[in-house]
Amino acid sequence: MLKVAVIGATGAVGQEFIVALNRHKWFQLTQVAASERSAGKKYVDALRDPSSGILRWHNREEVPEYVKNMVVSKVDDIKPENFDLIFTALESDDAMVIEPKFAKTTPVISTAAAFRYESDVPILIPGVNDDQTDLLKAQGKNRDWKGFVAPLPNCTTTGLAITLKPVLDKFGINKVIMTSMQALSGAGRSPGVIALDITDNVIPYIPKEEEKVQREAKKILGKFARNAITPADFRVSCTCTRVPVLDGHTETVFVETAEAAEPEDVKKEMLKFSKNVSIGKLPSAPKEYIVVHDDPTRPQPRIDRELNDGMTTAVGRLRKDTAFDNGIKYVLLSHNEKMGSAKGAVLLAELLKDKQIL
Amino acid sequence: MLKVAVIGATGAVGQEFIVALNRHKWFQLTQVAASERSAGKKYVDALRDPSSGILRWHNREEVPEYVKNMVVSKVDDIKPENFDLIFTALESDDAMVIEPKFAKTTPVISTAAAFRYESDVPILIPGVNDDQTDLLKAQGKNRDWKGFVAPLPNCTTTGLAITLKPVLDKFGINKVIMTSMQALSGAGRSPGVIALDITDNVIPYIPKEEEKVQREAKKILGKFARNAITPADFRVSCTCTRVPVLDGHTETVFVETAEAAEPEDVKKEMLKFSKNVSIGKLPSAPKEYIVVHDDPTRPQPRIDRELNDGMTTAVGRLRKDTAFDNGIKYVLLSHNEKMGSAKGAVLLAELLKDKQIL
Amino acid sequence: MLKVAVIGATGAVGQEFIVALNRHKWFQLTQVAASERSAGKKYVDALRDPSSGILRWHNREEVPEYVKNMVVSKVDDIKPENFDLIFTALESDDAMVIEPKFAKTTPVISTAAAFRYESDVPILIPGVNDDQTDLLKAQGKNRDWKGFVAPLPNCTTTGLAITLKPVLDKFGINKVIMTSMQALSGAGRSPGVIALDITDNVIPYIPKEEEKVQREAKKILGKFARNAITPADFRVSCTCTRVPVLDGHTETVFVETAEAAEPEDVKKEMLKFSKNVSIGKLPSAPKEYIVVHDDPTRPQPRIDRELNDGMTTAVGRLRKDTAFDNGIKYVLLSHNEKMGSAKGAVLLAELLKDKQIL
Amino acid sequence: MLKVAVIGATGAVGQEFIVALNRHKWFQLTQVAASERSAGKKYVDALRDPSSGILRWHNREEVPEYVKNMVVSKVDDIKPENFDLIFTALESDDAMVIEPKFAKTTPVISTAAAFRYESDVPILIPGVNDDQTDLLKAQGKNRDWKGFVAPLPNCTTTGLAITLKPVLDKFGINKVIMTSMQALSGAGRSPGVIALDITDNVIPYIPKEEEKVQREAKKILGKFARNAITPADFRVSCTCTRVPVLDGHTETVFVETAEAAEPEDVKKEMLKFSKNVSIGKLPSAPKEYIVVHDDPTRPQPRIDRELNDGMTTAVGRLRKDTAFDNGIKYVLLSHNEKMGSAKGAVLLAELLKDKQIL
Repeated sequence: MLKVAVIGATGAVGQEFIVALNRHKWFQLTQVAASERSAGKKYVDALRDPSSGILRWHNREEVPEYVKNMVVSKVDDIKPENFDLIFTALESDDAMVIEPKFAKTTPVISTAAAFRYESDVPILIPGVNDDQTDLLKAQGKNRDWKGFVAPLPNCTTTGLAITLKPVLDKFGINKVIMTSMQALSGAGRSPGVIALDITDNVIPYIPKEEEKVQREAKKILGKFARNAITPADFRVSCTCTRVPVLDGHTETVFVETAEAAEPEDVKKEMLKFSKNVSIGKLPSAPKEYIVVHDDPTRPQPRIDRELNDGMTTAVGRLRKDTAFDNGIKYVLLSHNEKMGSAKGAVLLAELLKDKQIL
Repeated sequence: MLKVAVIGATGAVGQEFIVALNRHKWFQLTQVAASERSAGKKYVDALRDPSSGILRWHNREEVPEYVKNMVVSKVDDIKPENFDLIFTALESDDAMVIEPKFAKTTPVISTAAAFRYESDVPILIPGVNDDQTDLLKAQGKNRDWKGFVAPLPNCTTTGLAITLKPVLDKFGINKVIMTSMQALSGAGRSPGVIALDITDNVIPYIPKEEEKVQREAKKILGKFARNAITPADFRVSCTCTRVPVLDGHTETVFVETAEAAEPEDVKKEMLKFSKNVSIGKLPSAPKEYIVVHDDPTRPQPRIDRELNDGMTTAVGRLRKDTAFDNGIKYVLLSHNEKMGSAKGAVLLAELLKDKQIL
Repeated sequence: MLKVAVIGATGAVGQEFIVALNRHKWFQLTQVAASERSAGKKYVDALRDPSSGILRWHNREEVPEYVKNMVVSKVDDIKPENFDLIFTALESDDAMVIEPKFAKTTPVISTAAAFRYESDVPILIPGVNDDQTDLLKAQGKNRDWKGFVAPLPNCTTTGLAITLKPVLDKFGINKVIMTSMQALSGAGRSPGVIALDITDNVIPYIPKEEEKVQREAKKILGKFARNAITPADFRVSCTCTRVPVLDGHTETVFVETAEAAEPEDVKKEMLKFSKNVSIGKLPSAPKEYIVVHDDPTRPQPRIDRELNDGMTTAVGRLRKDTAFDNGIKYVLLSHNEKMGSAKGAVLLAELLKDKQIL
Repeated sequence: MLKVAVIGATGAVGQEFIVALNRHKWFQLTQVAASERSAGKKYVDALRDPSSGILRWHNREEVPEYVKNMVVSKVDDIKPENFDLIFTALESDDAMVIEPKFAKTTPVISTAAAFRYESDVPILIPGVNDDQTDLLKAQGKNRDWKGFVAPLPNCTTTGLAITLKPVLDKFGINKVIMTSMQALSGAGRSPGVIALDITDNVIPYIPKEEEKVQREAKKILGKFARNAITPADFRVSCTCTRVPVLDGHTETVFVETAEAAEPEDVKKEMLKFSKNVSIGKLPSAPKEYIVVHDDPTRPQPRIDRELNDGMTTAVGRLRKDTAFDNGIKYVLLSHNEKMGSAKGAVLLAELLKDKQIL
């Protein structure tokens, strides 16, 4: 068993780490850390909002027993050398300072954006760009770290990159135009989205989100050679919005492919990719990596997000696009807090262990 | 005062007609008709749902006094020759049969799709394609009707066509890619969208909607000459979705322009078009035809939909697109039951009267 | 295995029957029936709404495989003698006609109100008034039926009666005042509650609901002797409302007890009753019949409704009442489509089989 | 014109003050103050949330022009002697410290609970207990203040006290049992209720709310003589919950009257009280103080809350209660941010000016 810590353990993403690590066969959670406000409290007490009295636990499962009484540490009190791996769920500014300290001795898997755009840092989605994991070794040498920082992409990038991968490999891609309808949990819980702002409403803007998705999708799907990533050379344009949905990011995607691609063939490629996905045997991997619905009313976030515990990307409405000569369009759904965040990070840890990088 | 009737007066669109015609200075509502189920009842009684007892009136204002006690007629009992103008809010299949009967003697303004795609029928948005109103005269001759059928576009087309118009005129358009997040009221009330289907959810499909928008936008923005409309020659691709919002369709729009267009210049064109719009003096015209927000969090449906009683199209997030060489993108909001439907139809009636076509 | 049919199988309650009977160890579903509109279709096709194309399946689980391709029968084509038991999920008016026909030969367990108030018909909640099951035998004799009609209570009565039972037995009850905040699924799906009516809203009225709850609670908790039920002699007053919640009825309850009752003692009685509940060993019985939360922010419908697959009644905020001399008050949550409806009906079937009444 | 300041001007209640004072004929807003975080900014800039970029303005109207560019002061920089009246919208702990400082020189009308339960402080609802305004004079003497602190009740008390008043006066009251379904805006906006907590949910607890309502209702409806208030001697018990509604508190009320009262007579008393209400001529007074619906589906918060700009209390479902010998029950709706808060405070200021206490 590898000993692991979760930093930022009381937030929305941190909570998903707690659930994803419950009874894990390879990883043992031995310490949780969070902000000053929570430090010194039992985990379950740190979750309670002082003014409303509400337990700020956002998960279909109850707070797992194994963590309820763990005392929350201050982040500064974490000794990284005590762990084989550290999962971080921090704001980007904090991650920028804290993650390098940890990485000196210990591998860090991060959900923050802080290091994503550095040239020696891959943005990893298990099953999509596993080859880029080699860059982590170079990163350590580069920076004189025993560990490394391995960031996940933004949760809105995940489903997009997963579904574009088989299209890119088979047909090539020139352009991608995407509109997201993002779930509330993507904004966290402290306070995240205020009910007064989103009830009966759509908010057509999420700060910095579009730039992240546009940049990350190309890096993830880029070419890796001689320890360098060359971003994929297609063009991406996004508009990211927030809608009154608890979990699950819905995205409409319009793709101009390099070669003509019939929807039926794209479906076949997606399913073939899903079936043969590299990470199929890892403990947190879903039974299906991608599902493709023929029912035009699917995927719907409330109905489809929990499939395979939120680790499956669902595609629907796959059809010819009418703006491009070679175009297809589809709708995708990805669980932003499962595959798109903490549980995806645990899956990445499994991949790194399997590849003996951990 | 012109005498008018509203057909389909108890549905969601019909109710907006009732409100839009309340104390109108040019039009006097003298008869309302609806389905068998409502016929013979007082208007206000016909609104009540028999099983839940709820008054199915969907409007911020109360049921206007002038109509409460009007007895609802059967559609078959309407004598079109008694009216100067008939507004219809019918299902397309019914409109196909009923509207031609009325048009033999009387002009019909329709919110249904039944006749939109016929070659002698313009799809009219006051302020956008007023020149196409001339086709109504040809239509009458063609079909040996004293009246005509003048349909409005689908409510999702309206805001799109309005905002594309100044872009097309100044910069030319090659491609338009649009994703809609449509309001509940767009699906009507009998029963419209079921709460169990849409709570905490997005439905990624609205039957036939995308085809309508794609076809109508090009016809509305087409060239009119010698009594024929040549559709605009840009390409359009849409994905239409339903979100848990009461009123107001939000759309994300990506445009490849023919000539390079800076966002600031597009904004200027939109505002210039808005200021000089042809219909500015008509009774139901909004003070502003288009507003352009600099605040990136706008437009939001709950906050912006009622501006100028729902007759203004709101634009926001106007910026460079990153997928096209000459590209801009923006978000728009249009009130689907006001400018996009009944009140837009009343505005059209005003335009036709002003042009002495009525 | 007993052979069973479900009548009204495509509605919201019918669907829960389908799920509750999936892989049941005692009951085998061999036929499903529904209205004319569905008859002759495969079950899964009958669920699809013709206008929106949406699969009207309201359940966290997918449509079970065993039923997908079953062809839906017309109700008139059901031969009751082919079944050991028939579950019905019908509107009350239909139940009034259909259930007696079936009961001539076959036991019927019904979620409809049609027969609830007849003197030879008990309203059964397994674990609360099991003794009243004996009335079913008398009913058969009375009416010259081989079978019987055994109705469940209204879904709003269930949680109330379950939580009052231990209070009544230990302390006696004089008065009960209850306000319900009922879930959308309680109104079914054809069409049930319209999203336009309930978004950002509360509807303070549910036709006939209050009368049902007031009458049923007293009958269920009444005394049974010599084949007659004497309603409990406390007084009940309810106000029933609808709120924008998918599943799970929340009720605030104020009780004037006959003897003084400390909240701590009431809690103890509830938990003792739960622990010793008669039906604890039946296949569909929950691990806990009642849970009592000390956390004042619980129970919450979204968080607590699925506990033990919706078969547990959750109580919280148990405290002294300040209006009565001997008063307590609490909040309860009961899953209206699980314990309060179809799965509760299956639990009742299990009880009747266990008692050899089936 | 009296010069007034608003303290806590950027919060949800503060914003309602801004709207209520816009173009007021008696009061001129000359300064706004808020927390350190806002101080020194223009009012409109202080409203913007730094992380989401959203303008935290919660009102159907836009931010009024007259206040947009006013610079927000620190609370400590307010010189109370510069004002004829100060409106405060503060947390109770802050109010406890700040309001007495202001009251030394200047009358304070407060929405905070800090002073409500002091013996020389009346809790005032204009139209209900105007006689208790005399206590403000005694308060000044008592405390050696030139001004006074005049608090409004909790927003959940307001509608309850207003509707009980005519019942109490005519029939007497023994017991009141109330369940509230409170709106999101009642919890403010910094952050108020988190969307993740309330979507598809009811929260059955609002800290301290029930105690406030129970205590305040009796004080407001108490007897005032010789500068002392004797609380009304009926008993009150409440359960307060939060529901997913933007504005408007719905309450179900069960009343045991001292004398028998037919619902029709109660309705008459309510309407008579409404018609003759003392404050009918004040600028912010509604056209109707109470409306009573016969339609059993009313009042509904989304539909009825804005009546007379939120200053009217709506009653519905007035009927016999079945738990009490002499009982009636009804549902009420009161706008928690209009009559129940800032605009109610402005109405109170008008009353005090009219009575020359200001």
